[in-house]
Amino acid sequence: MRTSMRSNQKVLGILTGSLSKRHSGKDRSALLKMALHSMRKARGCWSFIRALHKGPEAASVPQKDCMKRVFSGIQPTGIPHLGNYLGAIENWVRLQDEDGSVLYSIVDLHSITVPQDPTILRQSILDMTAALLACGINPDKSILFQQSQVSEHTQLSWILTCMVRLPRLQHLHQWKAKAGKQKHDGTMGLLTYPVLQAADVLLYKSTHVPVGEDQVQHMELVQDLAQGFNKKYGEFFPVPTSILTSMKKVKSLRDPSAKMSKSDPDKLATVRITDSPEEIVQKFRKAVTDFTSEVTYDPASRGGVSNLVAIHAAVTGLSVEEVVRLSKGLDTAHYKLVVADAVIEKFAPIKSEIEKLKMDKGHLEKVLRVGSEKAKELAYPVFQEVKKLVGFL
Amino acid sequence: MRTSMRSNQKVLGILTGSLSKRHSGKDRSALLKMALHSMRKARGCWSFIRALHKGPEAASVPQKDCMKRVFSGIQPTGIPHLGNYLGAIENWVRLQDEDGSVLYSIVDLHSITVPQDPTILRQSILDMTAALLACGINPDKSILFQQSQVSEHTQLSWILTCMVRLPRLQHLHQWKAKAGKQKHDGTMGLLTYPVLQAADVLLYKSTHVPVGEDQVQHMELVQDLAQGFNKKYGEFFPVPTSILTSMKKVKSLRDPSAKMSKSDPDKLATVRITDSPEEIVQKFRKAVTDFTSEVTYDPASRGGVSNLVAIHAAVTGLSVEEVVRLSKGLDTAHYKLVVADAVIEKFAPIKSEIEKLKMDKGHLEKVLRVGSEKAKELAYPVFQEVKKLVGFL
Repeated sequence: MRTSMRSNQKVLGILTGSLSKRHSGKDRSALLKMALHSMRKARGCWSFIRALHKGPEAASVPQKDCMKRVFSGIQPTGIPHLGNYLGAIENWVRLQDEDGSVLYSIVDLHSITVPQDPTILRQSILDMTAALLACGINPDKSILFQQSQVSEHTQLSWILTCMVRLPRLQHLHQWKAKAGKQKHDGTMGLLTYPVLQAADVLLYKSTHVPVGEDQVQHMELVQDLAQGFNKKYGEFFPVPTSILTSMKKVKSLRDPSAKMSKSDPDKLATVRITDSPEEIVQKFRKAVTDFTSEVTYDPASRGGVSNLVAIHAAVTGLSVEEVVRLSKGLDTAHYKLVVADAVIEKFAPIKSEIEKLKMDKGHLEKVLRVGSEKAKELAYPVFQEVKKLVGFL
Repeated sequence: MRTSMRSNQKVLGILTGSLSKRHSGKDRSALLKMALHSMRKARGCWSFIRALHKGPEAASVPQKDCMKRVFSGIQPTGIPHLGNYLGAIENWVRLQDEDGSVLYSIVDLHSITVPQDPTILRQSILDMTAALLACGINPDKSILFQQSQVSEHTQLSWILTCMVRLPRLQHLHQWKAKAGKQKHDGTMGLLTYPVLQAADVLLYKSTHVPVGEDQVQHMELVQDLAQGFNKKYGEFFPVPTSILTSMKKVKSLRDPSAKMSKSDPDKLATVRITDSPEEIVQKFRKAVTDFTSEVTYDPASRGGVSNLVAIHAAVTGLSVEEVVRLSKGLDTAHYKLVVADAVIEKFAPIKSEIEKLKMDKGHLEKVLRVGSEKAKELAYPVFQEVKKLVGFL
């Protein structure tokens, strides 16, 4: 992992510095103790997220079989935030070390389903590459690639588009939710992107797909299309399984009933990986909680504080119970700063790595090019088979 | 052209033979005279179709400029019929000899917008290749290629899909007409194929597109997408112009109010290029006309006979007036046989060339492969530019 001893010391320096400016001696020592404790737990260990909300659907340790292939995609729209990190990226990093092959795609084709500025998009693709590498995606362990560089995605997508009907897509929650937000409704891209997602997954004969809960319906479409293709043309695609991230959605710091989102108009609602320590402290300071000062975990009746506890547990690797126990006696105002510091500590090495990587555009482009070539090597023979089955060859 | 002196003599032999079995001496000599006359006019000359229904929209001798590029596509679904031949293919052959470059695509991606049997589709792609070559498409003069072999078609199509909205596609006549015929309505492929058509055309920065009247609305979409792209990303695509085929739709022989169509359930309605002389005679014999025996041209009140006159003029290269004058004294029953013979004569060399070409599958595959490589050479740099403009590169 990229968090070396030296960079941890550097983080600690930053943390101590930031603490010293804002806290009394007593506070400072308690916070420092927690920070050191969490740092020891976290060092060199990325696979420690606990299921906070374990339920029947959040199960799925992925099946270990020799054909296991994981595929997931992330849109290149801005710097990942805490929700992306805890909800997806950390899980991606963990999956690299399991059996089977792993593909992670920067899905630029999906990003244009809503309007994009080309200059910003171009930069965002490189920024996302830097962010993923800094978070621990290792191009030697997983295939990290840019979707638009592998032409087979849209080719297979067209074939699948000819196997699905309008009402099926119109009834998907995401379309209903997103289309309404767009001027004059969404584009056909926004309506049909779940079919492109199916192509993304099936093109590599993927068996496992890490998804958030908001993508469960789209995974059903992927499964149906795999089965529909197999029924029409003979057994060909594995029917992929969802890996539901055990961590629930991270909530907005300003509205604990809403998911943390990069497009939130309230700039204080979302913590980005690259936010400065000052920004992170400010955002947590302004986090919406309630009039009870005690720190407890009760998502149903105390959404705001429970979101902080969940974030705190996730970034430190402690359990919710441990976090609550350690925070005993702190009021929520102080607790917000504890969580902020834990987040700062977690992101500091990532942030500095991102800054370093962003200096070398050539390296980022090369990582994507090499990754895309590897992805193409897998996609090409699969799609040639598809063309034969469909009757094009 | 493929109709050599020797093969004309062979055609003449077939024609004479078929005449001798069915006609009296007097009939025979009149018919033979007409046949010889039309053969002289037709020999070695493919660009003789006269506008039968010239109107304001049927104009357009394509503009001669140095950047002229013609694109058109044909679905690989069965052997072309008389309507395809006179409505499109003959025009394609003519356009090869004009200035500028010409691309003709066997649009297999479009064919799967309705259900296809893979084995039949595979064969149909080769059959269509053979038919086009036999009709005079010359791979040295035009780029004849298979759409699915050039991945940029679906790639550009995706970008354009993100620039169009659902109602625009739902209001297209073709969708309304075709979707209704499908079980459970049409697929998303059937709904969105006009966007793929736009990609087909724009990918080569085409300036001219030969289309039938039923495609005029789709060409408006192509033009709007070109303009929309240019507005968003800067002047890039030429806004292509339709070349409306001057020959109106050939009508069904069984229902002069309907277009001749390969999917007509009445097998007698449609004459295929490869029909035997006996089949052609039988179909024209059974052609629906009216109770007036005289041969006149009046499409509004005498659809059946006028369709025969139009076909006769088109295949012989005579004007409608000449055909009517030459047919003076013949009743419609005899006239049907005259038209049948003219069609047999027209198609005989094509039919024999198709049979020859179909024997050599390797040659047909090579023609498509070489053509697709040439198309790819044109498509690749254009699409690289598109990717840069959109922000993918």
